[in-house]
Amino acid sequence: MVELYEAMSSLRAVRRLKSDPIPAAIMARVLQAAAWAPTGGNVQPFRIVVVKSREKLEKIEAWYQQEWARYTVGMRSAVDLSDNDNPTVRTLKAGDYLANHLHDVPALLVFCFNPEHMAITDAGLDRPSVVGGGSVYTAVQNTMLACRAEGLGCVLTTLLCFREAEMKSLLGIPPEWGTCAHIPIGYPILRGHGPISRRPVNKLAYFDSWGDAEI
Amino acid sequence: MVELYEAMSSLRAVRRLKSDPIPAAIMARVLQAAAWAPTGGNVQPFRIVVVKSREKLEKIEAWYQQEWARYTVGMRSAVDLSDNDNPTVRTLKAGDYLANHLHDVPALLVFCFNPEHMAITDAGLDRPSVVGGGSVYTAVQNTMLACRAEGLGCVLTTLLCFREAEMKSLLGIPPEWGTCAHIPIGYPILRGHGPISRRPVNKLAYFDSWGDAEI
Repeated sequence: MVELYEAMSSLRAVRRLKSDPIPAAIMARVLQAAAWAPTGGNVQPFRIVVVKSREKLEKIEAWYQQEWARYTVGMRSAVDLSDNDNPTVRTLKAGDYLANHLHDVPALLVFCFNPEHMAITDAGLDRPSVVGGGSVYTAVQNTMLACRAEGLGCVLTTLLCFREAEMKSLLGIPPEWGTCAHIPIGYPILRGHGPISRRPVNKLAYFDSWGDAEI
Repeated sequence: MVELYEAMSSLRAVRRLKSDPIPAAIMARVLQAAAWAPTGGNVQPFRIVVVKSREKLEKIEAWYQQEWARYTVGMRSAVDLSDNDNPTVRTLKAGDYLANHLHDVPALLVFCFNPEHMAITDAGLDRPSVVGGGSVYTAVQNTMLACRAEGLGCVLTTLLCFREAEMKSLLGIPPEWGTCAHIPIGYPILRGHGPISRRPVNKLAYFDSWGDAEI
């Protein structure tokens, strides 16, 4: 039983996960949290493939390692990798750990969505569309908060979108569905969830006009 | 103090809202919940404009009414509008109420995002992109859960994306930012949050391969 604000305020990205299995009752509660999420028209245009197969995770890990290496080239060259006090270095090392251990996480939650079942109101605008995410990432956030409540580490990743074709083939995902979140979950090796660092609210919220912070 | 699963499992779309003001301390907690949300690289590429100005809300209401009418033409012609036992009719009537009372909600939360601050990993795929939403709708869900905890009704709307240019002009939103969620909040006129209707988890989650439900 975790209080809502306590869960939200201590939900960290946890990338070092034990391989210990997750009891079925706990996994069921995590998935139930996803199912409770609001979606446009209550259509629930998402599905979750819970990957536990070691064989499949090994294939996914190989793809993830390639994308993680590619994604972090610039970050690596911009820092002194021996400086463990640098937050970027710490994130890189935690990410490297995840990339090298994705094969033995107890579960990888692959969130799928069907754009045909969504009213994507910003599809015609001259900027990147995000509104389809409004019917999936609500469930993703519920899932991660549930992990926090259950003592499970988790982290939202999206790099495997670069390998969506391979992922869909591996998991048998139908043509009309896409993938948009890949969340490894498991018990934390280190301290797990805890304090988080965020901007103060008055840098994020304005009243009545952009830039007018009143709180 | 609301328990996490209790909040999630009773978060309804509440469209009939009182005009009573929201105390500043409560508003601050709702916005803090948004700020706690995880975002890609912890960049927090979202901002919230809290619209309380009656003058601005009246303009927004006029746009919303037009889009709501347009969006629901098909729904209205498909049902017997006098059948109040039909869930679609009930949703239409609640939506009509909201569309006619947006001018006097105590606050409309307009979520903005900056795609230049996001790594949109599915931007190059041959399907609608949603991944940008992964760094905004996590905060949206936290916000709505906080409303639930504080006894505030709320509902996620996105129809005002069709009027994004007007909204940006009205609220002074910079060119490089988009809008992706418009959440009226206020104390409920009727029962507010409560029981929700969702698919069972085994219709939403599969194990290892699409279609293989094991729970």
